[in-house]
Amino acid sequence: MDNFEFYSPTRFIFGKGRETEIGKFASRFGANRILMVYGGASAERSGLLNKVRAALKEAELPLFELGGVKPNPRSGLVYKGIDICRENGVDFVLAVGGGSVIDTAKAIAGGVPYDGDFWDFHIGKATMQSALPVGVILTIAAAGSEGSDGCVITNENGMHKRPGGSELLRPRFAILDPELTETLPPYQTACGVTDIMAHVLERYFTNTPDVETSDRLCEALLLTLVNEAPKVMRNPKDYQARANIMWTGSLAHSDIVGVGRAQDWSSHEIEHELSALYDCAHGAGLAVIFPAWMHFVLEHDVDRFYKLAVRVWGCETSEDRLSVAKEGVKRFTAFLRSLGMPTSFGELGAKEEDIPTLVENLFYERSGKIGQFVPLGRGECESIYRIAAKA
Amino acid sequence: MDNFEFYSPTRFIFGKGRETEIGKFASRFGANRILMVYGGASAERSGLLNKVRAALKEAELPLFELGGVKPNPRSGLVYKGIDICRENGVDFVLAVGGGSVIDTAKAIAGGVPYDGDFWDFHIGKATMQSALPVGVILTIAAAGSEGSDGCVITNENGMHKRPGGSELLRPRFAILDPELTETLPPYQTACGVTDIMAHVLERYFTNTPDVETSDRLCEALLLTLVNEAPKVMRNPKDYQARANIMWTGSLAHSDIVGVGRAQDWSSHEIEHELSALYDCAHGAGLAVIFPAWMHFVLEHDVDRFYKLAVRVWGCETSEDRLSVAKEGVKRFTAFLRSLGMPTSFGELGAKEEDIPTLVENLFYERSGKIGQFVPLGRGECESIYRIAAKA
Repeated sequence: MDNFEFYSPTRFIFGKGRETEIGKFASRFGANRILMVYGGASAERSGLLNKVRAALKEAELPLFELGGVKPNPRSGLVYKGIDICRENGVDFVLAVGGGSVIDTAKAIAGGVPYDGDFWDFHIGKATMQSALPVGVILTIAAAGSEGSDGCVITNENGMHKRPGGSELLRPRFAILDPELTETLPPYQTACGVTDIMAHVLERYFTNTPDVETSDRLCEALLLTLVNEAPKVMRNPKDYQARANIMWTGSLAHSDIVGVGRAQDWSSHEIEHELSALYDCAHGAGLAVIFPAWMHFVLEHDVDRFYKLAVRVWGCETSEDRLSVAKEGVKRFTAFLRSLGMPTSFGELGAKEEDIPTLVENLFYERSGKIGQFVPLGRGECESIYRIAAKA
Repeated sequence: MDNFEFYSPTRFIFGKGRETEIGKFASRFGANRILMVYGGASAERSGLLNKVRAALKEAELPLFELGGVKPNPRSGLVYKGIDICRENGVDFVLAVGGGSVIDTAKAIAGGVPYDGDFWDFHIGKATMQSALPVGVILTIAAAGSEGSDGCVITNENGMHKRPGGSELLRPRFAILDPELTETLPPYQTACGVTDIMAHVLERYFTNTPDVETSDRLCEALLLTLVNEAPKVMRNPKDYQARANIMWTGSLAHSDIVGVGRAQDWSSHEIEHELSALYDCAHGAGLAVIFPAWMHFVLEHDVDRFYKLAVRVWGCETSEDRLSVAKEGVKRFTAFLRSLGMPTSFGELGAKEEDIPTLVENLFYERSGKIGQFVPLGRGECESIYRIAAKA
C-alpha cells in the first residue's frame, strides 16, 4: 500500500424528499447569494427547480440562474457562469443535476476568484488557491462528482475534454434523493451504472501490491451494482435499488475505495475523445472502450483479472487462470449488454476512419503516455480504438 | 435503506514516518497551545513521544502533557485534562496512542468549553455545543476512534462504562503509520483485530431491508481482516498486512459502512460491563461476548447469518440454511481462537457468580432495552452472559 492522504468533508444528505431542506443547508454552509446551475427540460418539468426556487426564497437567499448545461459540458457556459457570479457578488454555487451540471458548477466555483483563464486548471498551467463553495442536489447516479474533487470540461476551442480538480472543489454538501432518479430513461440509468463501474475499475487496475482493503471495497461496490442494476432495469420505480446504486455512485468516486494505490484512468481518457467528438453519452463510450482496453492489457497481470473474474463475476476457480481471466471480461461485457449498453464502435455512432483524429486529439497538448497499469502511447491507444471498432 | 446524513471531515494521513509531519498538521489545523494526551511506557520507550515533542518545539507550539491513560479510560484523567486546558489556555488536544487515549482526548475536548460535568454527555443529560479540535497519532489498529464521532469513558464513581459522542469530536486529522504498530504484543494486536471485526458486525446485524451497498462493504472489511490478520500473527513486522488492518480499522468505525441502516451495538454494551468490572481488554471481552450473542439471536434472522457464513466464512451454499448459519458462527469463533483470543468467561477471568452484578451494572441508569437487531432486556442479557460462561 502506498502512503496517502484522504480528506472528504462533503456532508451527504441522503433520502426521500431531502431536497426540500435545501434552504437550511445552503444557509448552514454560508451561502448568501447563490448561482443555481442546471441542465434543462427534465428538472424544470419535474418541478424540482421550482421546489428549489421556493425553498431558497423562503430562506431569503437571492438566487441567480444558469441553465442549459448539456452532457459533456462546455467551457462556454463556465465563462458565462463566472461572469454572472462576479457581476452579482455570488458566493455559493448550487448544482441541481448530474455530473455535467456539477462539473460546470465546480469549474465556475474555481474560476471566479482566479485572475487567469479557468482552463489553466485543466491543462496543468495553474494550481487552484481558492474556490467558491459548491452544493449539490443530485438527479442521476453516475459521475460521482457530488463526492469527488474533480471536474471534466470540454473546451469548445478544439473540443478537447480534460479533467481538472482540486480538494477545494469537493462539494460542501450533496443531497441525494434516489426518488429523483426514478423518472430517468433506462438508457441514461444504464449509462450511469456503467460510469460508476468504470470509476471502480479505474481504481481496481493497479500495479501497487498489497492493497487488500481497497481491492475488497472495490469488489463490494461492483457486486452491489451487479445485484442492483438489473432490478432498476426491470422496475425503474424500485426505490431501494435506486438508493443502493446512488450511494454506490457517490462512494465509487469519492476515492474511499481508491486510496493508497496507483490508479489507471486510461479508459476514461480514451473515452473522453469519443464523447467529445461524437457527443455520445460518457457511460456509453465507456461501455465500448473499457472491454477493449481490458482485452489489450489483460496479459499484463492475469492474476488481477482472474481475481476480479472469481470474486465479482462468479467464475469458478481454475488452474487455467488466463481462461478464467478472459471469461471475466466476457461476463463484464455481457453484463453491459444486458443493461442495453453499446459495446462496439458502430452502435455508438463512432467511425473507424476517425481513429487517427481520436488519437491526435487524445495526445493534443499532452506529453508522455496515459494510464498507470499499462502506460499507453499513441500506438497502443490506436490499437485499443481498433479493438473497439472491430468488437 | 433508511435516510441518513454522513459527514466525515477527518483528514487521514497514512503511511510510514508521517508522524514526523505533526508540526505542520497541528499548525494547519489552527493549534496554538496543545495538550498531548498519551498512555505510558511504550510510547515513551519507543521514542515516539520525544519525536512529537521535538516536532512541536520546532513548530514553536507550546506543549502541555497528560500521560498515564490506561485501557478502559477513566473519568479522573478527563477532569484533570479539562483543568490543564482551562488553566493554560490550551486550544488543541493531541492524542498519541490508541482508543483509550483518543477517547480521553475527545472527552477533554468536549468538556473544556462546557460549564457542567462532561459526564452529562455520556448519560444523555446534555448535547455538545462546542469542543476543542482534536488530532491523533495512532499507535494501535483497534478502536477506530481516530475516525469516529464517539468516545467511551468509565466513570470511577460506580465503574460504569458509557459511550458518548458528537459530530464535533471527529478528529481534524489522524496520522496513521502502520510501522508504529509493529512492536505491539501479539495479544494486543489480536484484541485490536477483534475490536475492528466487532465494529463491522455491530453494523452488519440489522433489520433494515435493502442495504446491499453497506452489507457488501461490511463483508469487504471482514474479508480483509480474515486475510490479513493471520499474516501479522505469523510475522509482526509485516508492514503491508499492518497497513491493511490499520486502514480497515479506521474505516470500520468511521461509519462509512454503517449508514442508512439500524445498527445493533448490544454486544458492545454487554462487553463494556466485563471490561469495566474486570479491567480486561475490550477486544478480549468482545471475543467472549459476540459469539454468545450470536448463539442467542441467530434464529431471529437465519438468512442474515447464512449470508455472512457464505460470503465471509466461505461456507458452501445449502438448502439447510440454519446449519450453514451456525457453521458461520463456529468458524468466526474458531477464527478468534486462531488469533489467540479467549472465547469463554473463564479464560477472561470473569466469574459466573458475578452475572447478577454485571446485569445490574448494565441496566444502571438505563431505561428500556439495549440493541436493535433483537432488543434485549435484563433477562436476555443474563442469558447471553450465561452462554458465555458455559462456552
